[in-house]
Amino acid sequence: MDIVTKIAIKAKAAAPGIAAAGTEIKNRVLAGIAVALISNSRQIIEENKKDVKRCSAQGISGSLLDRLMLDEDRIGKIAASIEKVVKFNDPVGEVIFGYNLPNGLILKNIRVPLGVIGIIYEARPNVTVDASVLCLKAGNCVILRGSSHALETNKRLADIMRGVLKENGLSEDIIQIIPSAEREDVVKLMQLKGYIDVLIPRGGADLINSVVSNSRVPVIETGVGNCHIYIDSQLEGKNLEMIKDIVVNAKTQRPSVCNAAEKLLIHKDIASKVLPAVLDVLKAKGVKLIGGREVEKFYPGIEPASEEDWYTEFLDLKMGIKIVDSIEDAVSHINKYGSRHTESIITSSYSSSNYFTASVDSSTVFVNASTRFTDGEEFGMGAEIGISTQKLHRRGPMGLREITTNKFIVLGDGQIRP
Amino acid sequence: MDIVTKIAIKAKAAAPGIAAAGTEIKNRVLAGIAVALISNSRQIIEENKKDVKRCSAQGISGSLLDRLMLDEDRIGKIAASIEKVVKFNDPVGEVIFGYNLPNGLILKNIRVPLGVIGIIYEARPNVTVDASVLCLKAGNCVILRGSSHALETNKRLADIMRGVLKENGLSEDIIQIIPSAEREDVVKLMQLKGYIDVLIPRGGADLINSVVSNSRVPVIETGVGNCHIYIDSQLEGKNLEMIKDIVVNAKTQRPSVCNAAEKLLIHKDIASKVLPAVLDVLKAKGVKLIGGREVEKFYPGIEPASEEDWYTEFLDLKMGIKIVDSIEDAVSHINKYGSRHTESIITSSYSSSNYFTASVDSSTVFVNASTRFTDGEEFGMGAEIGISTQKLHRRGPMGLREITTNKFIVLGDGQIRP
Repeated sequence: MDIVTKIAIKAKAAAPGIAAAGTEIKNRVLAGIAVALISNSRQIIEENKKDVKRCSAQGISGSLLDRLMLDEDRIGKIAASIEKVVKFNDPVGEVIFGYNLPNGLILKNIRVPLGVIGIIYEARPNVTVDASVLCLKAGNCVILRGSSHALETNKRLADIMRGVLKENGLSEDIIQIIPSAEREDVVKLMQLKGYIDVLIPRGGADLINSVVSNSRVPVIETGVGNCHIYIDSQLEGKNLEMIKDIVVNAKTQRPSVCNAAEKLLIHKDIASKVLPAVLDVLKAKGVKLIGGREVEKFYPGIEPASEEDWYTEFLDLKMGIKIVDSIEDAVSHINKYGSRHTESIITSSYSSSNYFTASVDSSTVFVNASTRFTDGEEFGMGAEIGISTQKLHRRGPMGLREITTNKFIVLGDGQIRP
Repeated sequence: MDIVTKIAIKAKAAAPGIAAAGTEIKNRVLAGIAVALISNSRQIIEENKKDVKRCSAQGISGSLLDRLMLDEDRIGKIAASIEKVVKFNDPVGEVIFGYNLPNGLILKNIRVPLGVIGIIYEARPNVTVDASVLCLKAGNCVILRGSSHALETNKRLADIMRGVLKENGLSEDIIQIIPSAEREDVVKLMQLKGYIDVLIPRGGADLINSVVSNSRVPVIETGVGNCHIYIDSQLEGKNLEMIKDIVVNAKTQRPSVCNAAEKLLIHKDIASKVLPAVLDVLKAKGVKLIGGREVEKFYPGIEPASEEDWYTEFLDLKMGIKIVDSIEDAVSHINKYGSRHTESIITSSYSSSNYFTASVDSSTVFVNASTRFTDGEEFGMGAEIGISTQKLHRRGPMGLREITTNKFIVLGDGQIRP
């Protein structure tokens, strides 16, 4: 039997134990993991250096290498984020709804763990810990399949977490890592319906599409964000002032993340008044601007955008600019080219804000705020396991509650169906 | 372009219109459909006779032919059930949760329609109407792919419903039927990610497995029910009396449905006292009993059950009987062989009821009641679109709320992320 199937079988066997574990023991394990990460930071950094060295030798550099790298400070931050999860409410057992039925049956629908969650992700070792800790707090087993780039680091992190589980009398198999970097392993994972309850791919569009297309296990699609800001024709002085702040923040505050804005749409009636100033400040921040011919009229010298560009999540200091004839056109453009992640309208109009929030088909729609707020922690949901861009199960940031399912428990005293 | 893709494109185009439609207009359409079904019943029955005649000629008989058949009475019942859906609360717009964030953002998470729902089902023409009506009330477009057996009936039913949409100024494409019976059509449907938001297969295990295995569109797995009743060792006189009633009701009241009991587990300590009487009454009701050698000790002459039988949903007057050594063994058996649909324990013990409801990994767990109650209407959720046996999105009976998704709407006044 292959290693992935073996891991899945062990996870399924360990699932009832962690599902039944009380909040106190789960919190004790989480706190223990935070302590163990700090006290083992030297060994973690040693393994991480092997990964970094190997990747450098392979010619990997820049932001990817930066994401991979761990030091004392970063390990400290990972440990600190665990302490926050300890404080979150345990979602398991929460009554979602309940009532007595006319025939006397006492019905309640409660939150229960999903079971076994598979996480497929790229070269950020902090995900190894974050995802494990969230899955564990919500009573789930986790199977981790990180990038080959971080393999030695991830193995060590998993070993440390498994050690803490064992010390607390729980099965080590609650947290497991796939210890190889074969592509075939992901293919295996996707076939293990009946052992794995959900797969959450976190990473680029290619990875996510491949999992969505090929998995027999239910998938939660996360993260691709081709986010838009639309500047409405109805603007008071107050809105005019905030436009530059919101656009610059949404585009440049952290361009490599999914909730950064990629496109700016602006109503034709306001373009001459607003657009040059906004594009000047974006340019000054180093943003490469592309757009259609209509933009040339208001801001000469802009490079043309291809049809493909309108669909693309740049994840870079690059932005597509488009003039639209109406708010309806803006919404049509977003619903055609967007990724259903996050959009924002800047407006002073009651009816424009209502129309936009109702008509845009995205997980999150802002009025007069930066797209950068779409995030579990910012939304007061605690940490997040990902941002769902599919409609099934949950859209938007997913926290602890979103990695549970539900169960009906119905108490009777002899009821039969007439 | 093939017909299925054309239909999906039209559905996606019609989705914003029905999503934005208010409760009043949706209810007017529903009431109009109920009236139109009654006033067109002669024509419906005419088309239905063609289906019945063709199927009879193909040698189809018995319960399948009975399910296919429509008469005035059955059409009346379908219309009456629509009137109930009119009375249900509209789930669209319901605030799931919401609060103000520390930075002044006003956050709410609301229910919104899923968009386009594909229903793949077998030869019950009532599903054509029931599913359409529920999807419409929850603001969704529906694409219907029924069995070839009911094709003429379904076409006529869809035409009538589309006519009512048109009369009320809504797009006919909110309800569409795939007008052929090619197997290839289902394969096409499963590829149309981006156009169809969710597929709900309703029918036998083979159909459902095929959709789950091959679909790129997210799927809700419904309905296979290999349901168990476990008779605990702890029983007071009251429980002893109810055992026969519950077992007989769960097995025989309607054996062809997913919430009928298929297996009876009994604790060894109580078997000699209880089992013969229960099996006598099942036998008298015409139930074929199968079981292991241990059962022979208490009830001679019982036929052996194969390993496969323990996994099987019989949908017939047939029941597997098993003696277990402990409640833990009962739970292990259920979690190994069950389909995660519905189970019931008969007990007088507080701790047995708590252990069983917590440890059994099924959508619905009863104490001292018949498994036959797992049903959206019985559970006070109104009509149901199906019973989910998967963990993602929702487990158990799915009503109107369960064919919606959610959306974050966040109102600001210039907030940017620091």
